[in-house]
Amino acid sequence: MLTPAGAFLRCATRPVLTSVFSLPQQLHSSAAAPASMSPSSNAAHGSSSSGTSSSSPYKKVLSKDTINPNVQNVEYAVRGELSNRANEYSDILANGDDNKKKDLPFESVVTANIGNPQQQPNLAQKPITFWRQIASLTEYPALLDDEVLPESVRSKIFPKDAQSRAKALLDDLGSVGAYSHSKGAVTVRKHVAEFIEERDGYPSDPELIYLTSGASGGVALLMQVLIAGPETGILIPIPQYPLYSATLSLYNAHQVEYDLDEKNDWELDIQSMAKAVDEARSKQIDVRALVVINPGNPTGNCLSEDNIRDVLRLAHEKRLVVLADEVYQVNIYQPLERPFVSFKKVLRSFAKSEKPEERVIADDVELISFHSISKGVSGECGRRGGYFELCNISPEVEAQVYKLASVSLCSSIQGQIGIDLLVRPPKEGEESYALYKEETDGIYQTLKSRSEKMQAKFNELPGVVCNEAQGALYLFPRLRLPVEVEQKAKEAGKKIDEYYCLAMLDATGICVVPGSGFGRAPEKAGSSDKDGGKEDDVFCFFRTTTLAKETDAFLDRYGTFHRDFLKKHGRD
Amino acid sequence: MLTPAGAFLRCATRPVLTSVFSLPQQLHSSAAAPASMSPSSNAAHGSSSSGTSSSSPYKKVLSKDTINPNVQNVEYAVRGELSNRANEYSDILANGDDNKKKDLPFESVVTANIGNPQQQPNLAQKPITFWRQIASLTEYPALLDDEVLPESVRSKIFPKDAQSRAKALLDDLGSVGAYSHSKGAVTVRKHVAEFIEERDGYPSDPELIYLTSGASGGVALLMQVLIAGPETGILIPIPQYPLYSATLSLYNAHQVEYDLDEKNDWELDIQSMAKAVDEARSKQIDVRALVVINPGNPTGNCLSEDNIRDVLRLAHEKRLVVLADEVYQVNIYQPLERPFVSFKKVLRSFAKSEKPEERVIADDVELISFHSISKGVSGECGRRGGYFELCNISPEVEAQVYKLASVSLCSSIQGQIGIDLLVRPPKEGEESYALYKEETDGIYQTLKSRSEKMQAKFNELPGVVCNEAQGALYLFPRLRLPVEVEQKAKEAGKKIDEYYCLAMLDATGICVVPGSGFGRAPEKAGSSDKDGGKEDDVFCFFRTTTLAKETDAFLDRYGTFHRDFLKKHGRD
Repeated sequence: MLTPAGAFLRCATRPVLTSVFSLPQQLHSSAAAPASMSPSSNAAHGSSSSGTSSSSPYKKVLSKDTINPNVQNVEYAVRGELSNRANEYSDILANGDDNKKKDLPFESVVTANIGNPQQQPNLAQKPITFWRQIASLTEYPALLDDEVLPESVRSKIFPKDAQSRAKALLDDLGSVGAYSHSKGAVTVRKHVAEFIEERDGYPSDPELIYLTSGASGGVALLMQVLIAGPETGILIPIPQYPLYSATLSLYNAHQVEYDLDEKNDWELDIQSMAKAVDEARSKQIDVRALVVINPGNPTGNCLSEDNIRDVLRLAHEKRLVVLADEVYQVNIYQPLERPFVSFKKVLRSFAKSEKPEERVIADDVELISFHSISKGVSGECGRRGGYFELCNISPEVEAQVYKLASVSLCSSIQGQIGIDLLVRPPKEGEESYALYKEETDGIYQTLKSRSEKMQAKFNELPGVVCNEAQGALYLFPRLRLPVEVEQKAKEAGKKIDEYYCLAMLDATGICVVPGSGFGRAPEKAGSSDKDGGKEDDVFCFFRTTTLAKETDAFLDRYGTFHRDFLKKHGRD
Repeated sequence: MLTPAGAFLRCATRPVLTSVFSLPQQLHSSAAAPASMSPSSNAAHGSSSSGTSSSSPYKKVLSKDTINPNVQNVEYAVRGELSNRANEYSDILANGDDNKKKDLPFESVVTANIGNPQQQPNLAQKPITFWRQIASLTEYPALLDDEVLPESVRSKIFPKDAQSRAKALLDDLGSVGAYSHSKGAVTVRKHVAEFIEERDGYPSDPELIYLTSGASGGVALLMQVLIAGPETGILIPIPQYPLYSATLSLYNAHQVEYDLDEKNDWELDIQSMAKAVDEARSKQIDVRALVVINPGNPTGNCLSEDNIRDVLRLAHEKRLVVLADEVYQVNIYQPLERPFVSFKKVLRSFAKSEKPEERVIADDVELISFHSISKGVSGECGRRGGYFELCNISPEVEAQVYKLASVSLCSSIQGQIGIDLLVRPPKEGEESYALYKEETDGIYQTLKSRSEKMQAKFNELPGVVCNEAQGALYLFPRLRLPVEVEQKAKEAGKKIDEYYCLAMLDATGICVVPGSGFGRAPEKAGSSDKDGGKEDDVFCFFRTTTLAKETDAFLDRYGTFHRDFLKKHGRD
């Protein structure tokens, strides 16, 4: 039996904080674990003043067995054991003593597990100046007061258009410290509707737009409306962003899966979707909606207009609500071959179809589209801004959505202002335009070139195959690993991809997410590949963001790890 | 039959936007309704380009009958028909033509339905300068750069301590545009723990503190963990803030009610709580938690330490998790007689009990405490900042809470910064202290004096009885109305208190919430009251915030309406 050895497994025996995410168990416990890595369940769980709890016969009301079992079933791999361990390493590097630091075979942690572009210090995408100027002015309107900040000084700091924009927002919103309308500020929703109209060439109604806490807030809200009971099924892609599977688990609905085709650039296969619906329905599952993530997370696939048209035809034929997660619509890396086309636009365009029987689709198919300020070139995750638009949803259902939105009062006002800035960027001729364009073009080019470089480099590694990302912020490479690794993983209570990713983190400080966290299970490789390999090899995946500031160093660290890992498992 | 007449009912025949909140039906429809008041279910529901939907045989997937029935059951009176109609009136006053304006017998709308202190233009509580300076600096850190804003100018605008505080927050958080730790930024949670330790004199662990999207975000999260299935019951006060009833409806749990005693300043009666638990359990309801709102919303009651102690004893005896909603802990108007004491403090103090059998309570009873930046003297609702602290929750359950919090990524960073400012105000000797103290003292005194003045004035009105508010931001007066009003209400498809509040809005522009929205149903008055009245009179309630900037005008408008209303219903 091979024994784990070498730097990259040195930490594998340390206890980890939490084992309830998608990774089923911690590796082992060790009495020698540094204090910073002990579970949080310490002193404060018992009052420090009495310490009587151990002798009390009291049985806690809440235990694993008494809480909501659906909560137990939720898996969310993007944050979990790997992410917790990465946090611990960051903490050691930032605050730990030198001995602990020396224990780590890396000098920084790279959180490539989550699309969080502005995260310090290793991603650190710069915020857009125009956005932050307006945020700052709306937070402290005194800065617009000549007596506080003389006009001569102010106009050197804040361009005229930023000032007037901030004033207009304040006139509309009142204070950023007040709740807005439950759907979000009226003016912002009006601007979103104008943006959608301009983007798609079809009308949009501000009353059908809801401003939400990121796109996630909207997804959670609508899933609660859609899921009527345990017989409800929702069709989701595999691999998928685990927000969807987590939400379905939480609300106890069936996850009906359709596979994206890795061999074909992760395209969406309509036949297999139709089959998945029919099969589920034959089992009395009430499949009522389908989720499409476009551009794809984690796949990077960007759907062609034809493909979208087919999805909508299918939705009509099968009577499915379409949930279109379009949060990466600005992150498009092959704009000519694969431009972003919204589901809304394609839906409305059916009205002009040459086939009369298809024209009805435009008004029949119920569509909910999501967008966000967290991704794109703004990357403003921390503001929690997003929106959704309802299309062809009946007024009686819309009224229920509105009511439910009211219970959580409103989304954060700076998130709403972010949406306003997303949909109304500075225009040519305005004072802020040049800098805005320079910054956003720069971010876009950086994201694009990083994605391309990483994809190319991944494909140079033995046993790694990675599709190009046509969009979004991720790569989802496939690994061909020796079956011995699977055996080692099993011994550690892990899936093979989890084991690999933990080893990667321990060796390099790079935190990624195993493919199984996106629903894409490891599988037998079968016949040989570009690099040969053995019949009993295992295929598995991981998702990495393409956000690391020092892409070359990232690729070096990862490449060295991967080659070492293969070597250590008998693959030279 | 009496016909509705007079200014205050002139608008009662207009159609209203939404009838799904707590008010069961709209009054009537009228073809003459102004365009601005037509339902939002217009053109955009059908594509403007085809208009084929009416001829299509397609049956929408989502209808009132197919969506989640629990969503249907949710009632949320704070925003609903009244609030929608108030929005329409505001819109007419702001943007409508002169004829429509003339139709309205008031010149402004006062949104006394929701605790939203900074709402413009009629509440307009000023934000705390120190808070906004820091928000503004953290949004646009260039303001801390000498090349952008020379130190000499900067220090005139931003006090030194605001600058250094902003720098420290930026050092800790990185960018306000990045997601934080799923529980919230580590440093902020550390500061919250220090605040709780100082407030209570007992230890607090940052790992058991979660920063949330207002307190509501935390309540929703924890209810999902607590509610295991339809047999779960949660004890809530009546009257209560409808967030609780709404959440119980949404997650399909039993609402087990305990009455607050109006005749006794809305005190909490332990015997009746115990009885409610026993009765529910005898019906196989798994009562597992109790909600206490302290200070009370809508009642304004502030619990005595003895009362809290009894609640905790009861929780121990009956094995109940305690959810302590303490968002109004700063809004205390009788600080000597009724200071705020936290549940956490009283819980921990059991460890020092003279009765050995009670000492265990300190570590046995599971407690979750909520706080928020939306209320208090900050009133920063729009930032969506809150926190909860877990006490005596088992580590395995805590891990589930953590996982669930991760799915929604994190709360807004400016909300988290707000929490930091809430728990670490400027200290004596620091540059910002004087202004901070002046502003917060001023807000506090204003809130206190408004509450006192309004309560006194309410009691001068015929048929109105109103307890003093010991805390919070509301009054909850009781009305004695002639039975004729109930008849008129019934004809309009309303409860009597809804009818009264709609009439108030139509006549005065003042928007309040009927008592039935808080679970306090109208009831027969029975024997006569301070003002006499008849045997068959009806008692009902409404909640008003005590936030209206122009309190005297508010009281005049309301008083005139109330007297007119009684007169019009045969009570001179």
